[in-house]
Amino acid sequence: MKKLEQLYEGKAKKVFRTENPAYLIVAYKDDATAFNGEKKGTIQGKGAINNRMTNLLMQMLEQQGIPTHFVKELSDRETVVKAVTIVPLEVIVRNISAGHFAQNYGVAEGIVFDQPTIEFSYKNDALGDPLINSYHARALKLATQEEIDTIVSLSFRINQALQAFFQKVGIILVDFKLEFGRLADGTIVLADEISPDTCRFWDQATGEKLDKDRFRRDLGHVEEAYEEVMRRLTGAQG
Amino acid sequence: MKKLEQLYEGKAKKVFRTENPAYLIVAYKDDATAFNGEKKGTIQGKGAINNRMTNLLMQMLEQQGIPTHFVKELSDRETVVKAVTIVPLEVIVRNISAGHFAQNYGVAEGIVFDQPTIEFSYKNDALGDPLINSYHARALKLATQEEIDTIVSLSFRINQALQAFFQKVGIILVDFKLEFGRLADGTIVLADEISPDTCRFWDQATGEKLDKDRFRRDLGHVEEAYEEVMRRLTGAQG
Repeated sequence: MKKLEQLYEGKAKKVFRTENPAYLIVAYKDDATAFNGEKKGTIQGKGAINNRMTNLLMQMLEQQGIPTHFVKELSDRETVVKAVTIVPLEVIVRNISAGHFAQNYGVAEGIVFDQPTIEFSYKNDALGDPLINSYHARALKLATQEEIDTIVSLSFRINQALQAFFQKVGIILVDFKLEFGRLADGTIVLADEISPDTCRFWDQATGEKLDKDRFRRDLGHVEEAYEEVMRRLTGAQG
Repeated sequence: MKKLEQLYEGKAKKVFRTENPAYLIVAYKDDATAFNGEKKGTIQGKGAINNRMTNLLMQMLEQQGIPTHFVKELSDRETVVKAVTIVPLEVIVRNISAGHFAQNYGVAEGIVFDQPTIEFSYKNDALGDPLINSYHARALKLATQEEIDTIVSLSFRINQALQAFFQKVGIILVDFKLEFGRLADGTIVLADEISPDTCRFWDQATGEKLDKDRFRRDLGHVEEAYEEVMRRLTGAQG
């Protein structure tokens, strides 16, 4: 698989064309941003961790029948993925109150919900990724009802699988963000990444944050938190 | 029905206890606010128009099988209503893009949707009435799934009835806000008001705004717009 010209550079990843139009190569960066790009920095080694963690988790999900864009890990930072058109909805699944949810609705962090919640943000940096519901997403023709139903169903299945997986290594999955894409034939598959950039992970024993909140909130030991999650996951694999 | 002590004063109405705990008296004011109370003013005669328009529309809806809190009009500005516990969700139904929807999602006003949309705001002035979805509303225990299903179903039926009613008098129902309450036995009924304060009305022929946007956006002829809607509705009644 040959890496051809760069198609896109995002906040945390670059995307390259390959000689096969059905495949792309994703390259993970160490760049970190928060608050819609207002805060910028670097988390040393993050790119390699997020690449490997995403691939490990997507392969686990594939084994459980969740279609993903994952094809093949090329190197520490580079992976071949299926070319998709990203559905412009960021999907957030929450098991416990934290972050924007706690802020927006005036509740404490740490409230365990009876049932997981799901929400969509309209993926649009200029508008600040505003919260959007499924009626509005359809009105704006961002996705069809059938696609939204598929995304909701897959997201809750992914939540169950990830929760169970992380629980085994002493990590609480608080909430996480997913993105989905359409293959050329319209099939919806999980895309983007699953990493401490996109999930909130709390240590089961200590409550310590093991995710990008350490960067967002200047809590220190950012690199160590990313490494700790990876260490536990690969330990669990052995 | 005797008006006893005031229980509550809102932005546009006062609520009084009566000698019967199952009934309250609502008194409509001419006070107008916008942008979560940041803009304040008076719309002369608004209280009387909103009282009579709400009662007329709620009676029409009752005839179509929609349960409401309406009991009896006492005077120009005062009405007896059933005592309810308000469900802390503002329900917004939209047929055409306008207002916050257009702003938040970066689209023009005036886009006619294929299907009406519905959204909830968490009724909480301190938090700025943030947009909330049904998963979050349940997580915060603002309403049960059954109550939310009832509210959605009633809201779409109300939209159909109101659209048809206003169409007959040359008015386009762009969007509107509803509030629902629980009776002592848990029954969900339509509460609050239906008026140019809570609906966007556009003249079918000219596109002219006949609602509170004239106040919000300093368009002038605010009183005349409210009177015009009332004139058409009572004409249609005759």
